[in-house]
Amino acid sequence: MSSGLFQSDLQIPRRHVVVFCDDAFGSQSDRWVDLLPEGCHRILPVFDGGFDAAHPTCRPSVEAFLDAHPSRFDRAPSLVVSGGEVAKNDPRVVESVLTSIHAENICRQSFVAIFGGGAVLDAVGFAASIAHRGVKLIRFPTTTLAQDDAGIGVKNGVNHHNEKNWQGVFAVPTAVVNDFSLLSTLSDRDWRSGFSEAVKVALLKDAKEFVLLEQTADAIARRSEAESQRAIIRSAELHWRHIVEGGDPFEDEVARPLDYGHWSAHRLERLTDGSLKHGEAVAIGLGIDAALAVELGRATPEFQRRVLGVLQQFGFTLDHAQLDDPATLFVGIEQFRAHLGGALTLTLVAEPGVPFDIHDADFALISGAIQRHRSMVRTLLA
Amino acid sequence: MSSGLFQSDLQIPRRHVVVFCDDAFGSQSDRWVDLLPEGCHRILPVFDGGFDAAHPTCRPSVEAFLDAHPSRFDRAPSLVVSGGEVAKNDPRVVESVLTSIHAENICRQSFVAIFGGGAVLDAVGFAASIAHRGVKLIRFPTTTLAQDDAGIGVKNGVNHHNEKNWQGVFAVPTAVVNDFSLLSTLSDRDWRSGFSEAVKVALLKDAKEFVLLEQTADAIARRSEAESQRAIIRSAELHWRHIVEGGDPFEDEVARPLDYGHWSAHRLERLTDGSLKHGEAVAIGLGIDAALAVELGRATPEFQRRVLGVLQQFGFTLDHAQLDDPATLFVGIEQFRAHLGGALTLTLVAEPGVPFDIHDADFALISGAIQRHRSMVRTLLA
Repeated sequence: MSSGLFQSDLQIPRRHVVVFCDDAFGSQSDRWVDLLPEGCHRILPVFDGGFDAAHPTCRPSVEAFLDAHPSRFDRAPSLVVSGGEVAKNDPRVVESVLTSIHAENICRQSFVAIFGGGAVLDAVGFAASIAHRGVKLIRFPTTTLAQDDAGIGVKNGVNHHNEKNWQGVFAVPTAVVNDFSLLSTLSDRDWRSGFSEAVKVALLKDAKEFVLLEQTADAIARRSEAESQRAIIRSAELHWRHIVEGGDPFEDEVARPLDYGHWSAHRLERLTDGSLKHGEAVAIGLGIDAALAVELGRATPEFQRRVLGVLQQFGFTLDHAQLDDPATLFVGIEQFRAHLGGALTLTLVAEPGVPFDIHDADFALISGAIQRHRSMVRTLLA
Repeated sequence: MSSGLFQSDLQIPRRHVVVFCDDAFGSQSDRWVDLLPEGCHRILPVFDGGFDAAHPTCRPSVEAFLDAHPSRFDRAPSLVVSGGEVAKNDPRVVESVLTSIHAENICRQSFVAIFGGGAVLDAVGFAASIAHRGVKLIRFPTTTLAQDDAGIGVKNGVNHHNEKNWQGVFAVPTAVVNDFSLLSTLSDRDWRSGFSEAVKVALLKDAKEFVLLEQTADAIARRSEAESQRAIIRSAELHWRHIVEGGDPFEDEVARPLDYGHWSAHRLERLTDGSLKHGEAVAIGLGIDAALAVELGRATPEFQRRVLGVLQQFGFTLDHAQLDDPATLFVGIEQFRAHLGGALTLTLVAEPGVPFDIHDADFALISGAIQRHRSMVRTLLA
């Protein structure tokens, strides 16, 4: 009997590029067009329906730009899909993108350019990633959350079996183009919602950035341009560095450090049936995890006060009626454990820039943390 | 206005392992079990219905083995799916795998173990690859074609929009376990069908191997163990080396050298509605591409005669009524061009181990090659 073993490490070359500008289809178009492979490429623009309605000048100007550069782009008719979490819940969104990719002869050397918030980037990116084993993506995030966090990630996916992101793939976009001008029509609520993720990544990775956010949160809440753009760029950079320098871009390891504050946030989103936005739920989740670190004797009440303070400056509401029922919230811990494959690793923060992991969290502990969180919120509001 | 650009290469660590044995669930189980991450993992065995019917002792022995090793495996109930191209055409196959993965709590640290031919490996692998952004795969190929070619690849996918492999992703399995004992119940026709891919990869990459195949084709056709296993191992190795050493495992480049002989093979499979098996169509495709190289003045008629000779020794039929209509076959060139994104790159072979690329092929050329192919087949049969 013959036998043998072939074993070797694979190199899969991928480049992760994030570019910032405020006029991607005008004077600054070379910033992203020059990053693309040479020659003329077929391109399918896909727009988030919510963004398209709020920002009606964008789609015509994108189409005019692409049509004005026939040596670089061969444009397919634009597709507009449902925005928000609907994009990830309604299988017709993925199917409509697949149908357009097929009908418009979008191949592996073509592009799907996605204009939208995190949910649309996820769902449309998933469709593009399973067509022809992966059509190239260009992301144009249209929310603060998508620009400083979601759009930087290399995940794509949709909800399935009633579970968030149950179906999906990892795929690195050819470019992420953060055009600040796309944010101008955001509601204040959507604007604010992006900055809890900026607070999260600063707490995990950069104490100095956390201090800067404390100093500029009021100005950012007023949508002051310089402070807001600086914060978005730094948050995007910290998320991007985690992916390109963290050694685990496709999450083969069990630990999920960027999910700080997220076990309860995902659960709150579900329990409130989406009436809490992701960024709003993350703000509450960060508060609970700060209280948890205090309960464990690893963080001071002063740290907890600072975390809640900066989130309040951004305008987040940190209490919620759902916190009356810690048992229902606690289910989020068990779901997170199952998601990680049975062994829990929860990343918490002891002080800005100093994360630590725990591997167990019983109901008494979580219940105490929720009580401590609400008590501190009441004190700060008093 | 703030601006910036973050740009970096990503490292995505992947290892590609192929192991050979003839008793994977008996005395040689350590050869593959020792390759898996430590600890106990949930595992979902999925069986090709055709294989399961032909080889009824396999499933019980796999289940008994997994149950006998509770420190390593926590087995979910086996799933049996339709075998053959049906697995890639019927969306219920993918849906049934997704449903089992969900119902049985198969997570990103769990395994889906697939026992089947190339089509089942493709379809079930696709389902596993889009669940939780990728459940780990162990492939147990059950045909000569899957062991020496299809199972070694890093592609997964299904047919969609009436096009072969239109939906799919790249995913590197945790291990490919080539257990020769799984081949014992193959029909002679299925047995033979794996070896045209062995001829193909030898022609592209290894002149010595081509000579060895010429010397042993008769013995392999008689299913002589030593010669057959040697040829399967070498073909698997050449395919594996192409992936791990070729620098383009996920096919970012336009050239598709392993598709030698495949433009017409894919077309013939479609035109004959699957009555020609993939390996049988590839045998005819290799003959046509050998004739094409002669038409172009790049190969000698003696080379063409050797290619047809070895394929005939394996028992392949090299003519087909469908070749009466070169225009219908020629459509395959245009489909291949579209698949590559508009610019044609066709890899041909001038002599064993000496490939070359062409970028154009008009109807007169293809028509002449088909005529030359049929004429040589007639001469050899005379």
